[in-house]
Amino acid sequence: MFVIGERTNGMFTAIGDAILAKDPKPIHAIAEQQIAAGANALDINVGTRVPKAERPAVMKWLVDTTREVTDICLAIDTPSLEVMRVGLEAACRKGPGMINSTTGQADKLGAFMGLAKEFSARIIGLAIDENGVASTADAKVEIGMRVLAAAMEVGIATDEVYLDPITLPLNCAQDAPGIMLETIRQFKLLSDPAPHVVIGLSNLSQGATERGLINRTFLVMAIQAGLDASIHDPLDEDLMNAMITAEVVLNRMIFSDSYLKAYRQK
Amino acid sequence: MFVIGERTNGMFTAIGDAILAKDPKPIHAIAEQQIAAGANALDINVGTRVPKAERPAVMKWLVDTTREVTDICLAIDTPSLEVMRVGLEAACRKGPGMINSTTGQADKLGAFMGLAKEFSARIIGLAIDENGVASTADAKVEIGMRVLAAAMEVGIATDEVYLDPITLPLNCAQDAPGIMLETIRQFKLLSDPAPHVVIGLSNLSQGATERGLINRTFLVMAIQAGLDASIHDPLDEDLMNAMITAEVVLNRMIFSDSYLKAYRQK
Repeated sequence: MFVIGERTNGMFTAIGDAILAKDPKPIHAIAEQQIAAGANALDINVGTRVPKAERPAVMKWLVDTTREVTDICLAIDTPSLEVMRVGLEAACRKGPGMINSTTGQADKLGAFMGLAKEFSARIIGLAIDENGVASTADAKVEIGMRVLAAAMEVGIATDEVYLDPITLPLNCAQDAPGIMLETIRQFKLLSDPAPHVVIGLSNLSQGATERGLINRTFLVMAIQAGLDASIHDPLDEDLMNAMITAEVVLNRMIFSDSYLKAYRQK
Repeated sequence: MFVIGERTNGMFTAIGDAILAKDPKPIHAIAEQQIAAGANALDINVGTRVPKAERPAVMKWLVDTTREVTDICLAIDTPSLEVMRVGLEAACRKGPGMINSTTGQADKLGAFMGLAKEFSARIIGLAIDENGVASTADAKVEIGMRVLAAAMEVGIATDEVYLDPITLPLNCAQDAPGIMLETIRQFKLLSDPAPHVVIGLSNLSQGATERGLINRTFLVMAIQAGLDASIHDPLDEDLMNAMITAEVVLNRMIFSDSYLKAYRQK
């Protein structure tokens, strides 16, 4: 599992405050904590409190500041092509970058794939197109196919692409998790080498009381269906334990009595 | 999910002591606790401390004592045809009975199916035959097919049969859970109406340190694969919460903010 830590995000109050105050300490700390907890990459999102015009410069500051403490993969989280380029430039000076994300909309897809190629960045493709979020597995897979085709056109290997079926909150779409699981299975069959499949986990439990329980239960199911990447909170220890145990139960990681510790020491 | 509580079992020290002392209080208490926690049936096992010759009489006492506080389904847990008959007679005086279990061995199968028919009892068929525990999904499914054929021969509906793929400890067979998941999927396709699929969950984590975590992670996966019954400890609250959440995430139970409470009040 490729864990993309979600906590370097201006939507969390403490991080949002640090971004507005240009205070590097909380930014360093949250990066270090997530990596120590097992994150393989960090999502970088300036949040919504930064005025639009300032977002390119603020993204650069946030990436540069994070890069002061780590050279792991940074996933630039923005729908803006301009902010994405600035973020990738900063991220790829020292370590790999990732595009989070493109949709399957024809105009967006070509531009973001061009950036992915230019920066040798991994890229997340969402099951969204001109018609909005695809609601059936068939429609999601069709968009996934288009994303892979666009990647191949610019010479990006299909296993540099991370397809995202789009996570909807359980409390407004109770059939959505089942559709996601079916989509994950089908995504993995789309190409050889297979694309990676990623989800933004937390959205599933938005507005629910039992958030942690819902998140970790679904993550286990998604891993069983073929998920190999997840954007989530690596500081949620119960969630990480469930994820690691799923890998062990599915024989993707060697069992030992201290397998939880072994994972965290790797 | 049909939960068969595993705690009325002489292998637990306190229950074993109560059985040897013919003390009904702990037997009543463990039955009531398991039912309050969500058990739909109770497994009844006299344990290994009772001498073989006394097991029929002790099984009768244990079932009669449990029947003093409940009329839910009792699963008579013994490989002995004689003990099984005595247990079913006692159980079925007031409520349904269940046979736990028969193997697919030709001689055993006919005799236990005859008992199931006679007592209108549900019956668990293990993926074991003359050659021992079947180790591949194909071999397990082949035995499952034989169990279903034997049921049909005596006029038992296929959905009164509970097929069990056999749970092996993760620490001696790390590929076993994957094989079980594949077997569960295939069991559900064997007949129409489909057989139920049951596992004895706890054996999976035998000898491991993280027993609870391993058990609940695998239970979620097994439910996703089609499992609809489980022999486990209903007093393990984390396990029951994971099970209930799996049902909600898979849209088999209505989501509400208080779904955990709602399940326990049903």
